[in-house]
Amino acid sequence: MNRKSKGIKAERDLVQLFCMTGDWLAIRVAGSGSSRFACPDVLAGNRIRKLAIECKTVSTENKYLSEADIDQIKEFADVFGAEPWIGVKFRSEWFFLSIDDLKKTNKGYAISKELAKNKGLLFEELIDT
Amino acid sequence: MNRKSKGIKAERDLVQLFCMTGDWLAIRVAGSGSSRFACPDVLAGNRIRKLAIECKTVSTENKYLSEADIDQIKEFADVFGAEPWIGVKFRSEWFFLSIDDLKKTNKGYAISKELAKNKGLLFEELIDT
Repeated sequence: MNRKSKGIKAERDLVQLFCMTGDWLAIRVAGSGSSRFACPDVLAGNRIRKLAIECKTVSTENKYLSEADIDQIKEFADVFGAEPWIGVKFRSEWFFLSIDDLKKTNKGYAISKELAKNKGLLFEELIDT
Repeated sequence: MNRKSKGIKAERDLVQLFCMTGDWLAIRVAGSGSSRFACPDVLAGNRIRKLAIECKTVSTENKYLSEADIDQIKEFADVFGAEPWIGVKFRSEWFFLSIDDLKKTNKGYAISKELAKNKGLLFEELIDT
């Protein structure tokens, strides 16, 4: 599976996680990687909360997000009225990081599996906060 | 342009309409026609309201929506926490119908351009209600 297919599969898995809860629904955003307007990869909602989620799959290496990536997520969440989250899939487990928890680097932000595990919320914690 | 491309173009135009307002954002839902979970074609939001929009392009003929189509939109809107709307594009103009305004038929619901024009809200009215 190439990187793009892997990303789409991860997003679909996350959508399914939300939809299986019964009181949340989620959708994948079409063209989230190429849209000229700010948008997340996945949008989830229930009657009270809306989550704008940028999804990353992490294996052994760190993942990097540019300042522009983060600004886009924040902008979308601010205007659309949603909470901005970074969803990190490591093996079959998801960890959800708030932007404040990302590690700042010279050029943007870095996510390691250690950071995701130490600072991230599990799915059950995310939907329960 | 085939029917599918025409539909995607119409959805993109609608997303752009929202994004150009400055205080709304919208996204197209990936796989909205084929998802196993209920979902609309377009989701729009600002800090207060969220709109789940099923999009139809209407030329001279009536468009039909099945009971199942309408149930799906209502279910999505109910769980996700959004207002359900049917967006009807006739030539370059959009009209937005609430489900109560659709004309009931034996097998589902019908939309004509007359119904859209008589009962539908214009874009400016939709975002201002």
